[in-house]
Amino acid sequence: MEPPAPAASLGEFDLIAKYFTPPVRRAALGVGDDCALLASAPGTQLAISSDMLVEGRHFLSTVAPDRLGHKALAVNLSDLAACGARPVAFTLALALPFVDEALLAGFSAGLLALAREHDCELIGGDTTRGPLNVCITVFGEVPAGAALLRSTARPGDDLYVSGTLGDARLALEVFRGNVALPGTEFDAVRRAMELPAPRVALGIALRGLATSAIDVSDGLLGDLAHIRRGSGVGATLDVDGLPRSAVLGGLSVALQREYLLAGGDDYELVFSAAARDADAVQAAARTAGVPVTRIGRIDAEPGLRLVDGHGQPVEHRYGSFDHFRSAAAPA
Amino acid sequence: MEPPAPAASLGEFDLIAKYFTPPVRRAALGVGDDCALLASAPGTQLAISSDMLVEGRHFLSTVAPDRLGHKALAVNLSDLAACGARPVAFTLALALPFVDEALLAGFSAGLLALAREHDCELIGGDTTRGPLNVCITVFGEVPAGAALLRSTARPGDDLYVSGTLGDARLALEVFRGNVALPGTEFDAVRRAMELPAPRVALGIALRGLATSAIDVSDGLLGDLAHIRRGSGVGATLDVDGLPRSAVLGGLSVALQREYLLAGGDDYELVFSAAARDADAVQAAARTAGVPVTRIGRIDAEPGLRLVDGHGQPVEHRYGSFDHFRSAAAPA
Repeated sequence: MEPPAPAASLGEFDLIAKYFTPPVRRAALGVGDDCALLASAPGTQLAISSDMLVEGRHFLSTVAPDRLGHKALAVNLSDLAACGARPVAFTLALALPFVDEALLAGFSAGLLALAREHDCELIGGDTTRGPLNVCITVFGEVPAGAALLRSTARPGDDLYVSGTLGDARLALEVFRGNVALPGTEFDAVRRAMELPAPRVALGIALRGLATSAIDVSDGLLGDLAHIRRGSGVGATLDVDGLPRSAVLGGLSVALQREYLLAGGDDYELVFSAAARDADAVQAAARTAGVPVTRIGRIDAEPGLRLVDGHGQPVEHRYGSFDHFRSAAAPA
Repeated sequence: MEPPAPAASLGEFDLIAKYFTPPVRRAALGVGDDCALLASAPGTQLAISSDMLVEGRHFLSTVAPDRLGHKALAVNLSDLAACGARPVAFTLALALPFVDEALLAGFSAGLLALAREHDCELIGGDTTRGPLNVCITVFGEVPAGAALLRSTARPGDDLYVSGTLGDARLALEVFRGNVALPGTEFDAVRRAMELPAPRVALGIALRGLATSAIDVSDGLLGDLAHIRRGSGVGATLDVDGLPRSAVLGGLSVALQREYLLAGGDDYELVFSAAARDADAVQAAARTAGVPVTRIGRIDAEPGLRLVDGHGQPVEHRYGSFDHFRSAAAPA
């Protein structure tokens, strides 16, 4: 039922102790008891999110272990960012086919480096043998009632996105052999795919300002659809105005649009804000050190309308990335 | 890189909506936004635990889906029980090779039935395609400072265990073809393996009474070793006094001892309490409706001593179940 363990391998408890027991400062009790203990400060709520990463779907076998550790936490921190929550702590459950010390050393280094950067403590978890699987549950703190939601966009609001879109998808297509890029350009987009920077500071800066927010993990159109449906609104997007890297800008218009609109794995924030708050949004972006671009508006009329730089309608059949479909779903 | 999806399959968001969106009452925000929101009540702490279940290690392919759903949550609730925490909420991350509606319907029915029984809400999670993997993170509430720990047993304390031990391991050995049992006896021990009852009420009743506690998931000796090491104490166990079912009592003494001491998957509580509190412990057990048996004592002298019903030493080389070793580790 299971492969034999290497004779000299570390056991489960040894490897938890060796790789996953950093000192705990904020939680009352961390790795090593049945439960970790955590309290929310008075007047705050804990924002909680779980993401599971599976080889071949969320990362490739070619990823360096430290980048895998980074990304596993980054995609969870991105969910906190989308809620405007400040990271506090996380748990890690990890299935490994065998005890691979090179993988574990790299994975924990990348994971814990990003955790330190965001002052987010590893407080517990589980390790087991099985097909490679990383499941992280992350905890953030947000003032009660201040969390950014998907369901509160209002007609007339401006629509924004942080950073640039599409590079992670471009890197994936290079790995798939569908696009060729020079080495330095490939390195740049590969970093976007493997080392996403969760927009935590931006999410916090947008509290009280953004009227809705979500992180772009399944592609802009798919994640925007969650805002549209959750808020009962429509949206108009300026396709030519979507922010993109110089590398992406070198592709054909058709590929650019596909990767920008339905790329996946971007981990940028898409959010709405009142038109009168345009200056405040740009000030928040400067505070967070992340560029944000106005990309459209929220409409009362349901549905999604894509327009080009001249305001002309753009035909589309772009979908979102869905972990249970092989083809993209219609937007 | 991945198998094609069945043409008419549900997508990721459809199946979340269909199977995993019960109404949320306690959390401020549940399944369907980037994060769930939860606050700890004043004067309380959140106890948090994550467990990952992998086919072939934590369950067999023969398990009925509703029992798998039950067990996935039960093993997590058992960690809360070991801390004396009252269940509040949980997140579910689920990887499935394909959208198997029969499995999902049964799994969610068993999962949510146990959740209702313990008033524990599903507040968020993730679904993806991949080798079958269930990762649950559970949240419980405990008065600040009242959590039962592994690290606080004291020399002279009595040692107890709840329920009976060894039946789950016996069922596994029947599946493995190493032991034969009549059908009705097999059904009984198979229930112990597939439908463990987390000792939540007992854990809560033991607050302020047990001086240490842990749940028996990797075998009595292995989990008792965590108490011994965490508390810097030793222990003496009466092997003949360990509580066992009539079915287990029908095996050879050697097999009984192996399954009682190093069986695994018991999900009973082993805990210590002051000798003067023996009556209070039994009263707590009656309140919780779970029998508890005194099985030994905590010693100042490090190490583990096994004795038989006459107080004579029992030679042993029993280990604990370790998810990264093929053979048991020495106790």
